[in-house]
Amino acid sequence: MPTATWNRHHILSLADFSAVEYDAVLQTAASFQEVLSRRTKKVPTLQGQVVANLFFESSTRTRSSFELAAKRLSADTLNFAAATSSMTKGETILDTAKTYLAMGTDIMVIRHREAGVPNAIAQEMDRLGVRVCVLNAGDGQHEHPSQALLDLFTICTLIDPTRPRIELLKGKKIAIVGDILHSRVARSNIWSLTASGAEVHLAAPPTLLPKLFAEYFSEETAGEFQPSIPKRQLFLHWQLEPALRDADFVMTLRLQKERMTAHLLPSLREYHQLFGITRAKLQLCKPNVKVLHPGPVNRGVEISSDLMDDPEFSLIQAQVTSGVAVRMALLYLIGSGKV
Amino acid sequence: MPTATWNRHHILSLADFSAVEYDAVLQTAASFQEVLSRRTKKVPTLQGQVVANLFFESSTRTRSSFELAAKRLSADTLNFAAATSSMTKGETILDTAKTYLAMGTDIMVIRHREAGVPNAIAQEMDRLGVRVCVLNAGDGQHEHPSQALLDLFTICTLIDPTRPRIELLKGKKIAIVGDILHSRVARSNIWSLTASGAEVHLAAPPTLLPKLFAEYFSEETAGEFQPSIPKRQLFLHWQLEPALRDADFVMTLRLQKERMTAHLLPSLREYHQLFGITRAKLQLCKPNVKVLHPGPVNRGVEISSDLMDDPEFSLIQAQVTSGVAVRMALLYLIGSGKV
Amino acid sequence: MPTATWNRHHILSLADFSAVEYDAVLQTAASFQEVLSRRTKKVPTLQGQVVANLFFESSTRTRSSFELAAKRLSADTLNFAAATSSMTKGETILDTAKTYLAMGTDIMVIRHREAGVPNAIAQEMDRLGVRVCVLNAGDGQHEHPSQALLDLFTICTLIDPTRPRIELLKGKKIAIVGDILHSRVARSNIWSLTASGAEVHLAAPPTLLPKLFAEYFSEETAGEFQPSIPKRQLFLHWQLEPALRDADFVMTLRLQKERMTAHLLPSLREYHQLFGITRAKLQLCKPNVKVLHPGPVNRGVEISSDLMDDPEFSLIQAQVTSGVAVRMALLYLIGSGKV
Repeated sequence: MPTATWNRHHILSLADFSAVEYDAVLQTAASFQEVLSRRTKKVPTLQGQVVANLFFESSTRTRSSFELAAKRLSADTLNFAAATSSMTKGETILDTAKTYLAMGTDIMVIRHREAGVPNAIAQEMDRLGVRVCVLNAGDGQHEHPSQALLDLFTICTLIDPTRPRIELLKGKKIAIVGDILHSRVARSNIWSLTASGAEVHLAAPPTLLPKLFAEYFSEETAGEFQPSIPKRQLFLHWQLEPALRDADFVMTLRLQKERMTAHLLPSLREYHQLFGITRAKLQLCKPNVKVLHPGPVNRGVEISSDLMDDPEFSLIQAQVTSGVAVRMALLYLIGSGKV
Repeated sequence: MPTATWNRHHILSLADFSAVEYDAVLQTAASFQEVLSRRTKKVPTLQGQVVANLFFESSTRTRSSFELAAKRLSADTLNFAAATSSMTKGETILDTAKTYLAMGTDIMVIRHREAGVPNAIAQEMDRLGVRVCVLNAGDGQHEHPSQALLDLFTICTLIDPTRPRIELLKGKKIAIVGDILHSRVARSNIWSLTASGAEVHLAAPPTLLPKLFAEYFSEETAGEFQPSIPKRQLFLHWQLEPALRDADFVMTLRLQKERMTAHLLPSLREYHQLFGITRAKLQLCKPNVKVLHPGPVNRGVEISSDLMDDPEFSLIQAQVTSGVAVRMALLYLIGSGKV
Repeated sequence: MPTATWNRHHILSLADFSAVEYDAVLQTAASFQEVLSRRTKKVPTLQGQVVANLFFESSTRTRSSFELAAKRLSADTLNFAAATSSMTKGETILDTAKTYLAMGTDIMVIRHREAGVPNAIAQEMDRLGVRVCVLNAGDGQHEHPSQALLDLFTICTLIDPTRPRIELLKGKKIAIVGDILHSRVARSNIWSLTASGAEVHLAAPPTLLPKLFAEYFSEETAGEFQPSIPKRQLFLHWQLEPALRDADFVMTLRLQKERMTAHLLPSLREYHQLFGITRAKLQLCKPNVKVLHPGPVNRGVEISSDLMDDPEFSLIQAQVTSGVAVRMALLYLIGSGKV
């Protein structure tokens, strides 16, 4: 496996990921996807190592995916689920991480409702000069790298199952639809997809588009997202149609229902009418368009229920399956350097 | 082990279990009971397979029993404990199951407070054409097959430890006492015990007998339960005494204390006086009568505290021990077909 | 490993621990500390055995430490976290323990908010004549033996890493500072440290010193704690200074913030001023003094934040690391007799 090219100790953000790194993840995940098709789905790669899932924000689905990935690499796992009450001060989080470090944790998988917590922990570990690895499993509205990487793997293996690589997305049009303002999934995907050379179109109601984006935004035209993302690669829309037109892939985002009570949305029904993905709206896209969603899905809100279950269009189950292989790859790539 | 005779992919209900299937479970469990008496209690049977415990209704005891059974078969386990809030719509449960399927789960052990959920999940899995197995670990007031099978195993191994088989119960009189109306344990036991040829006597206060049963009921006489259960095998009583008279086994049921606040019961004291099992009341039974309870026990309510602890009469600890062997057998029988 | 000298089946309290037993724990833990420095940190010692963590009072940190220790001995683990509601009656706790016994548990690690629960369970297991081992992981304000043993190991290995033994503490002065009244950690440490021949100085505000101690107390002079602790080994102080003067080690105790609302403390600020450990106050101690804390730490309350992070003085991380090795040793010593 291609660890010769791998030097990264933590995975916190995709903002500075290189093409070589994306390809290393994709190819390693493809190897593990093959392992997962065997009768005995375990490899001894991380035997004797400890993966601690420190989920300060609860998430059964992501935690299970990481736990299974770790177990299939023969690592021992520890699960930490925060009682929210004892976690009010920032220092305490660092101290919790240091306690798991002192117990002998090799890799920390961290989810927290506040952006920057995994970075803070990784910095502290580096400051201490220890070899523990930190993997961001979702931090506030910042990033969710493993989700974006499994999305990337899902798309690339669809195009070339034997040799998924980032250049396969060059020139593809990808729509990201929904609550972009609050979505760490969107943020991480913007980094990986623009790095691949795809054309990324964000579509959301004005209340759910980041203010950061708004200044670059003029309706129906392209705007530059940030210096590192080339012009004519990131486009923003207040309507769904221009994002869908001739799209190769449509990524829908989970809508947190509490957004509605915060008056950011009129009603779920109206949201679905304007931004929900249906079979009819997919007519605007390329004929073999595919739909993704990070889950869990609000059926009939982000996506119509029948479309979600249609294997011709939906990659939602494939994403979950990719998740285990990609997380095995990430744990392997950062963990195997520890030998 | 007798897998040649095993064709069942899911275990959802005992309503259509055949004598051959009951015997396959009993004999396989006996083999594992022997494994559990060795120093190293693990076998590699399900190595690399994933058993997901999807407990939408929490139960530490049953979940631990399944988890230990899976671990002793060398399977990897995932535990899912539902935050009740996010589980309001039926579709969401199917989507959760499909997520665990997509992650690579081989066997789903499902508990839910609503009857029929494991069936719905199994149907969906079959519709998708996937080879995942579903095991009902208790659904609403419907069934709890593994509990009834461990009760059966406990009784049969008492009669013939080396070769437990269902015909051993032919002609035995078994009393089931307590809150039959709300008991999935009673429902599953009625299927297995009547299939064995035993004579089953249900005893409960009128408020805790199912309405379904009431129409067949005339006091102190037998009534036909359903077409598939032969006449003169199932008997219903509003008093305890006729059920206990000459009984070989007495199965007590857990009384949910919330039944009292729902005005189905006058008081725990009065319930114990009328339907609680005591040493004195056991005088009515056969001399070597044994008492069972699925646990957890309300001491001094369903059963007097001293009787519960008396190894001469109580099989309660043996039931828990049988539980691990029987659940290993069930996971083995449905899981080993996946090779 | 030195099991020849080990006859204890349960570890409930350090009150009657012998010097030989302390040394057996220290030397076994040193062997496991060496294992933990290898690449593959697992040994097959307890393969096939079941360690059940029955935490009726929740504690992520201690539970994780025991879970990891068990996994590194290749045991299977079961975690039980009590829903407080169903645990009101003493008998129910015994029944829960008996259920885990009947499932096949070999070692029960028990934490409970009430003193005496692990003892009661151990007595019941002995009465039943079964070979299950019980390990007290903290019971009320009574004892927390594994914490005191890891403190002992941390100190002894600092003095002689290759051969930690209890006689190394003879004549050392050790201050225990803080909420001694409510601290099971302090109680267990008093037993082990006085057994080692160290001079133990307790320092606390009068409201946080046990009434039991008060009658033996005259300020600035020594008092006899109990017949089994020699005079001139245990000293009590209402001020910090005399405890710190020429101390070799300072053990700080966690301050439960709810003590303040119970009017046992004026304010956290004042507590820190009087009893919080700072760099300046350490000037009173021996030059190479070290500070311990069982964690989790309230930074700036029991200990100043900069001091806590200073590896020259703080043993707090070393304590956590020692915890895994010492708990491996305890599980090994009580569990390996089961063969």
